[in-house]
Amino acid sequence: MAGTDHTKADLAAALPAGPAIILVEPKLAANVGSVARAMANFALSDLRIVRAPGRTEADDARAFSAGATYILDGARHFHSVEEAAADLTLLLATTARERGQAKPVDPPEAAGRLTAAHIAGGGKAGILFGRERTGLENDEVALAHRVVTFPVNPAYASLNLAQAVLLMGYEWFKAATGGAPAFDMPTRSPAGSVSEIVSLFAHLEGELADAGFFRSPEKRASMIRNLRNMIHRMEPTKQDIQTLHGVVSALVEGRPGPEGRKRTTLKPLQAEEGAE
Amino acid sequence: MAGTDHTKADLAAALPAGPAIILVEPKLAANVGSVARAMANFALSDLRIVRAPGRTEADDARAFSAGATYILDGARHFHSVEEAAADLTLLLATTARERGQAKPVDPPEAAGRLTAAHIAGGGKAGILFGRERTGLENDEVALAHRVVTFPVNPAYASLNLAQAVLLMGYEWFKAATGGAPAFDMPTRSPAGSVSEIVSLFAHLEGELADAGFFRSPEKRASMIRNLRNMIHRMEPTKQDIQTLHGVVSALVEGRPGPEGRKRTTLKPLQAEEGAE
Repeated sequence: MAGTDHTKADLAAALPAGPAIILVEPKLAANVGSVARAMANFALSDLRIVRAPGRTEADDARAFSAGATYILDGARHFHSVEEAAADLTLLLATTARERGQAKPVDPPEAAGRLTAAHIAGGGKAGILFGRERTGLENDEVALAHRVVTFPVNPAYASLNLAQAVLLMGYEWFKAATGGAPAFDMPTRSPAGSVSEIVSLFAHLEGELADAGFFRSPEKRASMIRNLRNMIHRMEPTKQDIQTLHGVVSALVEGRPGPEGRKRTTLKPLQAEEGAE
Repeated sequence: MAGTDHTKADLAAALPAGPAIILVEPKLAANVGSVARAMANFALSDLRIVRAPGRTEADDARAFSAGATYILDGARHFHSVEEAAADLTLLLATTARERGQAKPVDPPEAAGRLTAAHIAGGGKAGILFGRERTGLENDEVALAHRVVTFPVNPAYASLNLAQAVLLMGYEWFKAATGGAPAFDMPTRSPAGSVSEIVSLFAHLEGELADAGFFRSPEKRASMIRNLRNMIHRMEPTKQDIQTLHGVVSALVEGRPGPEGRKRTTLKPLQAEEGAE
């Protein structure tokens, strides 16, 4: 999806350091490129690769990184997980299967919070991701403090390497930044007051009564209550209330005579309402 | 990552119906295939495609679906978003940018919870995803009840179509299933009792005293407290306590004579400890 804004690079620079992403023997350069892209999406930059020389320079890695080549260029290569994780004070191992190891198991969300808290406390964290087909070896899992596993459809649990990195990056980013969306509902005009809403009720209900809408006297009260609740659920602003007064008036004034009014079909909304 | 277990298909079948995934004019069949794969990971199956005929049959779609062809085969094609969403009672639109529309904006986690709750209440939900480069048009966003946007690195916000579907699938699945990991720490032997732990303390501290470990009398108490806290943080089981008694004894009995003991290098762990 579109939306990259390079002028916001400063904002990203102000984010806390993220965990290192450690890939153990990734086979496909395309996957390494996709991992770099997923890391960039969530402001991760410390990529470490164990025993997979050349993967970061391959054409496929470049193509699949979709511009996140700075992460490939900064990647470091190691001969073992021990070396790759030597400076880390919290190491998590991602696995799809139970490994019979007496380590705490976290879902990604808890792992994201733990990682963010560990880094906020001055620690250095990293997350291990295994080979595409066979995952991490038990000796590699044994080096980690904790295990992370993904809640997935048990009938289709083959999470791609870059997808696994994406989910961990996403959960870390949520935890580190509070997870607030990049924008919120546009500021609207101030909320309508009770008296403004009541005057709208009066206008609408008066016109409906004139039009013979409340045919059944015993249902009148509940019909009115329903209408009022519908309007309350809109949480109308002062502006909305003005608009609704106008809607009621327009409907009343345009009411057909005995010959009936020509039905018009609903026109599609025009794109002019918001700048692209 | 490895781990698909086709014998667990029954479990997946017991999951609640997920939201429909509606792709508007996806350009690349590879992306449609990757979307199908991401949907399968999180037990989604209702794929709807607006104005992109042939994308589900293309070779690229098949290849990138990584076996999730049943989703491609079941996909339905429509001429407009209105048609594609006609039966839905909750429609969310994913956008990367603010659209100037007075709709509530949710992060994916809240949207996942909302969707799961709506479906649990008997409703039908769907999520709109726009074109790879330009996203959804404003008229299309206007059809939705709410907007979803992803918390991403503002300097690199280009989330791929399948990644966006993956994150929404993941958050829906977490909300619908409680998000518990597929496995937990293996059941260990019962926790050690206070008296068992105290007997370990006595064994260890007695041997350390004999070995002249507590050279500084004024630091003795704090050294012991630290040791005890370290052992407590292990949360040792009865079995662990037996093991630690054995460790202490072995270290004591193997203590070198005046000629010194030959240092052995630490051997790597063997893979035999857990079945692959």
